[in-house]
Amino acid sequence: MDIGEFDLIRRIRARAPRGDGVVVGIGDDAAVLQPGPGMQLVTSTDQLVEGRHFDASVRVEDLGHLALAVNLSDLAAMGARPRWSLLALTLPAADPVWLDQFLDGYLALGEATGCALVGGNLSRGPLNIAVTVIGEVEAGRFRLRRGARPGDRLLVTGTLGEAGYAWRRGVEPEHLLAARRDRPEPRIDAGRALRVGAHAMIDISDGLLADLAHLLEDGIGARIDCARLPCSGPLARLVPDDHERWMLQLNGGGDYELLLAWPPDVPVPQVGALPVTQIGEVRAEPGILCVDGHGAPVNVAAGGWDHFAPPGETER
Amino acid sequence: MDIGEFDLIRRIRARAPRGDGVVVGIGDDAAVLQPGPGMQLVTSTDQLVEGRHFDASVRVEDLGHLALAVNLSDLAAMGARPRWSLLALTLPAADPVWLDQFLDGYLALGEATGCALVGGNLSRGPLNIAVTVIGEVEAGRFRLRRGARPGDRLLVTGTLGEAGYAWRRGVEPEHLLAARRDRPEPRIDAGRALRVGAHAMIDISDGLLADLAHLLEDGIGARIDCARLPCSGPLARLVPDDHERWMLQLNGGGDYELLLAWPPDVPVPQVGALPVTQIGEVRAEPGILCVDGHGAPVNVAAGGWDHFAPPGETER
Repeated sequence: MDIGEFDLIRRIRARAPRGDGVVVGIGDDAAVLQPGPGMQLVTSTDQLVEGRHFDASVRVEDLGHLALAVNLSDLAAMGARPRWSLLALTLPAADPVWLDQFLDGYLALGEATGCALVGGNLSRGPLNIAVTVIGEVEAGRFRLRRGARPGDRLLVTGTLGEAGYAWRRGVEPEHLLAARRDRPEPRIDAGRALRVGAHAMIDISDGLLADLAHLLEDGIGARIDCARLPCSGPLARLVPDDHERWMLQLNGGGDYELLLAWPPDVPVPQVGALPVTQIGEVRAEPGILCVDGHGAPVNVAAGGWDHFAPPGETER
Repeated sequence: MDIGEFDLIRRIRARAPRGDGVVVGIGDDAAVLQPGPGMQLVTSTDQLVEGRHFDASVRVEDLGHLALAVNLSDLAAMGARPRWSLLALTLPAADPVWLDQFLDGYLALGEATGCALVGGNLSRGPLNIAVTVIGEVEAGRFRLRRGARPGDRLLVTGTLGEAGYAWRRGVEPEHLLAARRDRPEPRIDAGRALRVGAHAMIDISDGLLADLAHLLEDGIGARIDCARLPCSGPLARLVPDDHERWMLQLNGGGDYELLLAWPPDVPVPQVGALPVTQIGEVRAEPGILCVDGHGAPVNVAAGGWDHFAPPGETER
């Protein structure tokens, strides 16, 4: 089917609900938005490329979810509340069926998180999905990557390693772990609940060890107790070998959980039903030491996700 | 040369000056921005694809300029003041020389227009450049595409057709008209000066007739006096034939000038040295009538820029 750019834009416009604070939405030269009084803006952009961030087998609806989720995860890591998004799509062809499926996932997550689609762009070329999100935070009440101190507890939300397993080993699209890879849930409520108490916060997109390194940039280090890495039942059954499973949990990437440096003397608030687990602590000594349940060092090869690393080194 | 994603990001971070209202800039999960009191946000995103929006012969520095300029033109068309930008780049390889040249053009235009680079993303894949800009406007003082009324004068800033000539006929990179194609100047000051008096405003990206059609969506029409279409000396010399030149000016695209519907009884303010020319008027009759210097109809084939039209129909 061949329909033009303006037909596709009309299609998107008709489906995108008008969000709060949207003075002018899709259809003009730009969107006009009303920020809340006393709020600061929090904004991030990500681009998804076939073969790098997803493969051809992904369901298009899941791709729509994923494209927005990875951006919302960045807002969650700042402790911000999502408000608006912009979607720039480069598509090989003007395919309204593809677009509708993509919007199914994208708009459902937007509605669930209070993030209204307010603008975008369509071009033709190799598939490329660029999403920008704008959120808000009460002035000064965001949380940065830096700020971790020796003695801080290291906390992580949810469970780790499922997305990494699905990426590296491959699973059927209907498998529970495929959902963890293709439909990550941005931890927005957790980011909101934990931002004030935390010393530092980041989302785990490239893998626990790689993102932990970003948290430790001031020459401090950390100890990870591998036996405490939170693991789902399905992953524990699929990978019963401890060392093999820990490698996935440390380096897998795509978890989109939050990692926090938390002061030792402050209680951790409950975040609904989402587990928040202590997995180690920040240390004055540089470097990351991983230990097993007996305190013995675990041999790990750090291998986070670098989008420009040679393909052989990044399997996902 | 092979350097990783994080090295490139450090490179960008080192070069991007800290802008006004930037609480947290490049390097964390998201940027934090301080909006001005009483201001509304104006935001837009565009994606540039090789072969569609630029060809391989473009100077990389010009490409950096172009990528930001096309977005700033959208802010200009709303009457907004640029403040911040986000840059998502998908590159075939991590090439620091290419990146530096790109940033030369991008950051120079950002500095000239008060638009600070605050965040972004790098991926590997077919070249794709996605830019999002965020500007501000005094609450309610933006201008939309809709609002034109019969009897309004049609005004256009600058001159038309040079970029279209360069796209369709091809020119040496050093040619004056290549600069009009590759380094368009977003009409920010004009948008600011003209936004309050205008009934409607749009930027001309797809071609005068195509964008005029967006201004006339409520069943009204317009007359264009082709003899009044503002033309630069070089274009007049290159295309002495009136009809041939008018076609370029009506359909060429890539001008990034502003088109306005202006009330007949309101004087047009001066916008520095930039010419603002009346090229026709809005009429109650639907359709666009183009006439020559004697009032005789001019036969035109409207051919704006649709990114999903078959390649033969869009030459640029």
